[in-house]
Order: sequence, then structure tokens, then C-alpha cells
Amino acid sequence: MVDLSEIAARNLSAVREKKPLIHNITNFVVMNTTANALLAMGASPVMAHAPNEVEEMVSFAGALVLNIGTLTDQWVESMLKAGAKATALHKPVILDPVGSGATALRTDAAKTLIDRTRISVIRGNASEVLSLQRDDTKTKGVDSIHSVEDAAGAARELASQLNTTLAITGPIDLVTDGNQVIRVANGHPLMGYVTGTGCTATAVIGAFLAVDPNPVSAAATALAYFGLAGETAGEGADAPGSFMVKLLDALYTITPQQLLAGSKIETG
Amino acid sequence: MVDLSEIAARNLSAVREKKPLIHNITNFVVMNTTANALLAMGASPVMAHAPNEVEEMVSFAGALVLNIGTLTDQWVESMLKAGAKATALHKPVILDPVGSGATALRTDAAKTLIDRTRISVIRGNASEVLSLQRDDTKTKGVDSIHSVEDAAGAARELASQLNTTLAITGPIDLVTDGNQVIRVANGHPLMGYVTGTGCTATAVIGAFLAVDPNPVSAAATALAYFGLAGETAGEGADAPGSFMVKLLDALYTITPQQLLAGSKIETG
Amino acid sequence: MVDLSEIAARNLSAVREKKPLIHNITNFVVMNTTANALLAMGASPVMAHAPNEVEEMVSFAGALVLNIGTLTDQWVESMLKAGAKATALHKPVILDPVGSGATALRTDAAKTLIDRTRISVIRGNASEVLSLQRDDTKTKGVDSIHSVEDAAGAARELASQLNTTLAITGPIDLVTDGNQVIRVANGHPLMGYVTGTGCTATAVIGAFLAVDPNPVSAAATALAYFGLAGETAGEGADAPGSFMVKLLDALYTITPQQLLAGSKIETG
Repeated sequence: MVDLSEIAARNLSAVREKKPLIHNITNFVVMNTTANALLAMGASPVMAHAPNEVEEMVSFAGALVLNIGTLTDQWVESMLKAGAKATALHKPVILDPVGSGATALRTDAAKTLIDRTRISVIRGNASEVLSLQRDDTKTKGVDSIHSVEDAAGAARELASQLNTTLAITGPIDLVTDGNQVIRVANGHPLMGYVTGTGCTATAVIGAFLAVDPNPVSAAATALAYFGLAGETAGEGADAPGSFMVKLLDALYTITPQQLLAGSKIETG
Repeated sequence: MVDLSEIAARNLSAVREKKPLIHNITNFVVMNTTANALLAMGASPVMAHAPNEVEEMVSFAGALVLNIGTLTDQWVESMLKAGAKATALHKPVILDPVGSGATALRTDAAKTLIDRTRISVIRGNASEVLSLQRDDTKTKGVDSIHSVEDAAGAARELASQLNTTLAITGPIDLVTDGNQVIRVANGHPLMGYVTGTGCTATAVIGAFLAVDPNPVSAAATALAYFGLAGETAGEGADAPGSFMVKLLDALYTITPQQLLAGSKIETG
Repeated sequence: MVDLSEIAARNLSAVREKKPLIHNITNFVVMNTTANALLAMGASPVMAHAPNEVEEMVSFAGALVLNIGTLTDQWVESMLKAGAKATALHKPVILDPVGSGATALRTDAAKTLIDRTRISVIRGNASEVLSLQRDDTKTKGVDSIHSVEDAAGAARELASQLNTTLAITGPIDLVTDGNQVIRVANGHPLMGYVTGTGCTATAVIGAFLAVDPNPVSAAATALAYFGLAGETAGEGADAPGSFMVKLLDALYTITPQQLLAGSKIETG
């Protein structure tokens, strides 16, 4: 396998060159932030959720981002429509199950989307992702997770079960398709003090999926890039407002060479 | 009564220690800003407005923030549902009657929410808050308010009538439960040039309500903290874009000791 | 004709003095940004989209901004209602046809709004604006536009056909009512890396329309002012996050004298 740091640099170059259109059906809190992040990294964001528009819009897109924050039933319908069209057109879809496991609406919506859509990557925190197990299986639940190793084992099992790639973000990010397990150590603690950094990570993976057909390398390299942007921002800011501004700056200024040198991706 | 500056410091410490979940049903303009402000101060924001989700969500929350900007009838229904559940669970509710008095939809929505929900605090500007008088009473109207003292008298009367605590923000903030009247002098003129500072003040009070059972001291101390953050931001910024960034920074960096020293709260 | 740089300075002074209320029915991505831009320049923004509120709200406003990003059928209904009321009250209306030409929903919505509303100015990029031609006419299509001069000719023809003023923004902005053609050369390349700069330009024109009854001079001078703010931001920032902050700062700090000196408006 080619070194993932090299793939990271190549993916970033490809996004900046091809400027893929990324269709987002996402939550109200982060729409502005993720649009700005996608623009800053070199992609072309579009936000569109009308049921009579999403199929047409996704047909122009390089990837579809579905994010279930601030959800309602109407938005689930639009997501299902867009997801079905993306599946038919063989476009990559990434799901962010914001709040899955917290309320029935969100858990059910995430599971329904997974059932009816070919999803390349699911990105969330450990409790969100591990809430997605099918009810009829005996996979270990979130309550049984007591360590990073427990999470890795459960994620691997769940990725196989769902036949997708899982990206669980935290101090150390974990990416697995049930077979490979990759860890990404880039990042900064202030990312937890800015709303929508998780959702933005998802959108950034979406942009990498538009140029990299391998969900595992797309997700891992996107998280290295986004985490490196956080590290860069953290060098110049020590509070969340300034950090957020510098994070957007870093997504724009980081070069493929800097990403090659700064990626902290561990396969195994 | 314990000195309110001490309570301010204690409340800020408690928010940072307990990280209460604050459930916001708020307007589209400020969702991102208020989520970031709550994170920066140390609380845990969640935005959720689906009618089939709000009751479940509010059951996890330390406080419920209802904000009627960018309102529609559907959102009023969700607010009523969430408010009823919060009332049943004895969770503090804070209402921001954005634009009440300007259009019938907003005035009616605010009044309906007040009628059907046990509301701990209502935060708005003078004309918004004073528009909330019941139609069948003879309380003096907004048009009769010609001075800060007029406003204080009208607010006190209205707080008694509505059996709640009113927080009227302006150059000098006024907090009253009909009995006590407290003035808070913290703040900065640039706050008026950033959208959502009022709505953010409401959310900050919500976080303080989650750790302080006394609505009057929660509201007054939260406004001192938020106003001090404005003063701190104003030291390093002289225009709204930079000010907004530094305001978020200050919510994160202000220590309880600094709040104790910097609060400008006057009881009487 | 008075020099347009002088009118620019006069319009900016008038906005800051009169603080006109600008009613926006706009998309979720840019609501926060455009509200902040309007506040920073000295206007008073309000966002309201409920069908049972928009007529009342627009009656208080100095101008109405209609923006079709993140559109649904319900929002089109509200826009039509608000537009009809604004037309009846002789209030200026500006339309931003975000994504017109990309999907049928957006193209149809823009055309319907144009048919049923007296619109003072339409602001978009070349492909959005030129997608608005009536189907039964033989105006040259977007595909036939191969140069700035082609665009100028097509825009002039379309402005006459639609009996409105078109403002096509790009590296050089073009404003025409079918008769006059004005070019505005202010601006900065980083504006393309921040989401909503086009939508914000539209809102800024809205504020100028509230103080200048001539749509051509209102649009051209607003674009000079907004472009100069971009240039000012670009002097202190070399990446999109910082640029966005400094753009808001510049909208607040630029004086009428600086605008008089810095406008790059060419009539002809």
C-alpha cells in the first residue's frame, strides 16, 4: 500500500485542482461553517434540501454529505431521496449521525438512511457510531466500551456488519472498514470548543471521497488534513473564537507538502 | 444576601465543572453563534426543534432556551411541547421574545408560551419585554416609557403580573422579579453591531439557570459575565468582525476571579 | 449625472444616518453573515419568513431582499407574499437568484418571483442572471457568452426585456438597466473563498436601495462599497477566515470619504 501521507497530499492536490461540487443536506447550526471550510480547502459546496430539488442537485455533485443534526421528518425524506439518487448514480455518500443514540428520531433516521442508501463512510463520535448497530444483533453496546481498544474492536465488528467504513473521531481518530484499522493522531483540544468541527470533518471527508475511490484512505487522509489544520490553528490561537478563524485559514494555506510532512496516520 | 459578584464567580465555575446540556429552540440567524458561545463558556449546547424529538431532548437538559426569532407556526408548536415537558420536569425555561411587539405572530407566540409554560426568565430589550403585558390589564404601555426609571417601574409591575423574572438588556441591564430590582452595568457599545448578542445573552442566562436555582441571581450574574466578555473584547477590537471573535475568546478565557473583580452589579 | 463616487459616499452616509430596516427572506447558509454585514454598515436587518408574518414585517422595511438559496416551495410562497406587499407599498425589492439555471426549482422560482413582483435589482453571477430569460424569447443563452462584452450585451438586452436593473458580479461587476452600462472594478479574489459574499453584496445593495431611489446608482455604488471593503480586508488578511472577519470590520470602518476616493466605477 502506498504511504497514506502521500495519498493525503495527493487527495488535497486533487480537491484543489478539480474543485468537486459537494452537495450537503446538513443541519442549520453548521451550514455556514461547513460551506466556508469546503471553500477554504478548494472544493465547491452547495446546500440544498428541498424534496423537489435534491435529486437534480446530487446529479451534479462529486459527493453527498448527509448530516442529521436539527433533523425533522421532512429532512429525512429529502435525505432518503438524495441518497437513493446518489446510490443509483454511484456517487459517494457520507453520513454524519449527529445525536444518534440520544433520541429515537435521530437513531431511527440514521438506521433508515443506512438501510436504504449505499453509504461509503459514517463519521461520528464513538457513542453516535456505536448506536448504529442493528437491533437484532448481539454486538456490544456503547455501555460496554471502556477503552480505545474496546472501541476499535466494536467499530471493526460494526463496520463489517454494516458493510461500510466507519470514522470515529476523538483525541485519536479511528477509521475501519472491518478489515483495516487506521489511527489518525492529528488534532487539537480547542476543536472541542468550536461548534461543528465534527460536522466539518465529515464534509472534508466528503470532499476527499469525491477524488479518492477508497473510503478508508479518503477518510483517514481527510482526518489527518483536518486535524493538521487544527494543530496549525492552535499554534496561533489559544481561545475558540480566534481558533475557528485560524482553522479556516489553515484549511486554505496548508500545502500538500506540509500535509505529507505533518500527517500522523498509523496503519495496523 | 451573598454578594452577587461572588455568586457570579460561583455560577461560572459551576457551569465549567458540570457542563450542563442546554437545549435551544432558537432562530436560524444565531444558532451557530449561540452554540459557540455556550461551548466557549463551558456548557454543552444542543439545538433540536422537531416536534417528535423535543420532549425527549429536553429531558436530558439542564435548561431550555426558547427564542422566537425567524418563527413559524410549526416552531411555536415545538416550543410549546418542549416547554410543557420542561415544566413537568421542573427544568428552568428562558424565553427570548425576539421581535415581540413588532408583528402579531411574534407577540401572540410569546404570550402563548408564557401562558402555557412555567418560565423562569424572560430576556429582551425594553420594547420586546414590555409588549408582553396581558391585554386585559391597565399596565402602562411601551409608549409611556420615557426614562430608565419608567422602564424599571413598568418592568417590576409586569414581572409581578407574569410571576416571572424579567431581564431587560440595554446600556444598563435591568433584572427584576417584581420585588428585587438589580442593575448590571457591564457591556460594550460594539455588542449592538453584532447580530445575536441579545440572543446569546439569553443562552448564557440559560446556562447559569442550569446551575443556579434563583432566576434573579442567575440572570443578573450571567449578564455581568456576558457584559464583561464584551468589555474584554472591546479592549482588543474596534470593529464588529474582530469584536465578535474576541467576544467568543473572552467567554472562554475569563476566570471566575476576573468575573468577581469585574462584575458591575447593583442591587436596590 | 453626478459623479457616482459622490453618490456612493452620500448613500453610505444616508444608510448610517437613517439605519433603514432591511427585511431579508434569505437562505440558511448566509443569514448570520448578511445580518452581521448589514449591522456593520449601519443598517438594521430583520430576518422573517413565516407566511403569516412577512406582509406585516415588510410594511416596516426600507427594502426587501429575496434570496432563493436553500429554497423550498413554502419559502417561495412567503417570498411571493412579501414581494406582492412590497410592490403594493412601493418598497424596493432586490432578488438574488442563487443557483438559478442549476435546478428547475430555482429557475422556476426566480422567474415566478420576477413575473409577480416589481423588482428593482437582480444580483447574481453571469450564469444565474442570464438563466432568467423568458422561454419564449430568442435572447442569447449562457452558452453563447464567451467574453465580458458578450455578457454585457446579453445583460443589457435582458434588463430591457425584464424591465429591471441587473447587477452581475464577478472580477468586474456589471450594472445595467438596459440603457446605461456601469462597471465596478472594486473587489478582492479572496471574496470567492468565503461563503455568502454574493448574498451579502445583494443585502448591501438592498440597504442602498432603501436610501437611493435610482436602482442603477444604488446597485453600482453598493458594489463599489462592498468591493472596497474586500480590498481593505485583503490588505490585512491572506486567508479566508481572517479575511471574512476583516471584511465585516471594513464595512464598519470605511468612511464616506474613503469610499469617494476608493470607488472604481466606470460609466459608459
